[in-house]
Amino acid sequence: MSTPMFERAALIGLGLIGSSLSHAMRRGGLARTIVGNAQSEKTRDTALRLGLVSSVYATPAEAARDADLVVLCVPVGACGAIAGQMGPHLRAGAILTDVGSVKGAVLRDVGPSVPKGVHFIPGHPIAGTEHSGPESGFAELFDGRWCVLTPPQGADQAAVDKLTAFWRACGSHVEVMDAQHHDLVLAITSHVPHLIAYNIVNTARHLERVTDTEVIKFSAGGFRDFTRIAASDPVMWRDVFLNNKDAVLEMLGRFSEDLTALQRAIRFGDSDTLYKLFVEARSVRRGIIEAGQDTAAPDFGRQHGTPKQPGT
Amino acid sequence: MSTPMFERAALIGLGLIGSSLSHAMRRGGLARTIVGNAQSEKTRDTALRLGLVSSVYATPAEAARDADLVVLCVPVGACGAIAGQMGPHLRAGAILTDVGSVKGAVLRDVGPSVPKGVHFIPGHPIAGTEHSGPESGFAELFDGRWCVLTPPQGADQAAVDKLTAFWRACGSHVEVMDAQHHDLVLAITSHVPHLIAYNIVNTARHLERVTDTEVIKFSAGGFRDFTRIAASDPVMWRDVFLNNKDAVLEMLGRFSEDLTALQRAIRFGDSDTLYKLFVEARSVRRGIIEAGQDTAAPDFGRQHGTPKQPGT
Repeated sequence: MSTPMFERAALIGLGLIGSSLSHAMRRGGLARTIVGNAQSEKTRDTALRLGLVSSVYATPAEAARDADLVVLCVPVGACGAIAGQMGPHLRAGAILTDVGSVKGAVLRDVGPSVPKGVHFIPGHPIAGTEHSGPESGFAELFDGRWCVLTPPQGADQAAVDKLTAFWRACGSHVEVMDAQHHDLVLAITSHVPHLIAYNIVNTARHLERVTDTEVIKFSAGGFRDFTRIAASDPVMWRDVFLNNKDAVLEMLGRFSEDLTALQRAIRFGDSDTLYKLFVEARSVRRGIIEAGQDTAAPDFGRQHGTPKQPGT
Repeated sequence: MSTPMFERAALIGLGLIGSSLSHAMRRGGLARTIVGNAQSEKTRDTALRLGLVSSVYATPAEAARDADLVVLCVPVGACGAIAGQMGPHLRAGAILTDVGSVKGAVLRDVGPSVPKGVHFIPGHPIAGTEHSGPESGFAELFDGRWCVLTPPQGADQAAVDKLTAFWRACGSHVEVMDAQHHDLVLAITSHVPHLIAYNIVNTARHLERVTDTEVIKFSAGGFRDFTRIAASDPVMWRDVFLNNKDAVLEMLGRFSEDLTALQRAIRFGDSDTLYKLFVEARSVRRGIIEAGQDTAAPDFGRQHGTPKQPGT
């Protein structure tokens, strides 16, 4: 085996992303040793049992000590406090990164705790599923997906290059941009989509004239797609919205403005406007498939023809 | 082989649903002869080539003549005119049904053209993919999905029972309800979800500070799910919104009201409200999976780990 990129990688948090990173690192032989930390004893035990880490620690500081790569894989809102605990224990020359869906807030919250000589380079792999926890990870999660790095001004270029090479070795494409722009782009490609998915599930649950049973039975008409996204980790998503408020509110304003125009087109039977808009939307789907960011298989490749008996 | 349910079934329209019905009928041996009609010569040729029909006709009237089952598989807005042409040619005792996503408008538009002695029973199989055309159909499309029948007042019970048995033999569960209630239920489980999917794709395309390329590259964060629904047939969906205006506007009003409340919770950092709502949404997903209406596999069972090179 060639020399691994890192001697000792510490995963702080062992949920979907942390566990997938362990799988991807082991697939690629990217770290000689992988250690970890998780808040709950149950997660720590599972991570050991699955071989995600060779040692597991009850505190982030213990896990991060002596590591040359430390990856924060926790909800965005938890990063600041953890960095505060770890800071004094980080080794000079180490790379500290994270995987959070918001980057401005992470820079703001983590930055002050990073000692001189430690390279802090926030990151965001744009990949996931609706499942959570240490058993939900898999090595292929990052394959073909984009990882965005948002190094702060004056970041060490060698460290940025090394982290770029690391994510490529995990299967990702890498793009570097500033944190503010990341937060704006992700507000429209991820945060607002999740918000409207949560919202329609909520609306559907509180109708007087349509029962919850009906909503579930007839969900194959489109609604069920939204429930997948709305089944994502609630703490992670609460933290995203609390920490990317401005960009989310801006994009939500645009969404609502456009929806009002569409509502008006329906009210007045403006057939041409509806048709034109629906045709244009198809081209975006084609672009995503051509860019390798989704499957061309119908219905996401969902399995048909092996139905369970309906519960109702 | 046992006696088929129908001697001669006529499929008026040979797109995704019409072609899938042909596959399902042949799988189950449900009709001795299947004939069809499509507006375009190309579709007619394809249908013959694929063996979807044994004879194909350039007009609905020719196809429907002598059939004991006639299924309208065309966009809702086209049903009225086609029924007008077919009416005089329908055979006494035949069952006339459709597959449209709106039922009130079909009753209103088709009803007057149905001769005495023909059993008109509107239907809606809640199944589909984002693909269109005669080559997109497959026999398993209806397996485990619900089909709603909305017989008008005074409909012949034997005909309703026969159509129920037909859809069960196509793999579906069947529920009977009145057309108005169907339209309200589908407004929330299908029509509004499609509308907001179309809308967010449209919003994303017209931003000044985020490029189309960025939207596509970083779509795996959630946005790409919406583009699948927004890639559905534009004519079909234009007709849905034009023909289920009242129910769509009612449900859209509820959606917008709830979204405004959620926006306010984000603005004021109301962490508890966000968390509570996100936790509750998970339970709806569980209900859908338990009812056999979606896969429990992460990410809809999307394939990971066989990425294409990105186009950008």
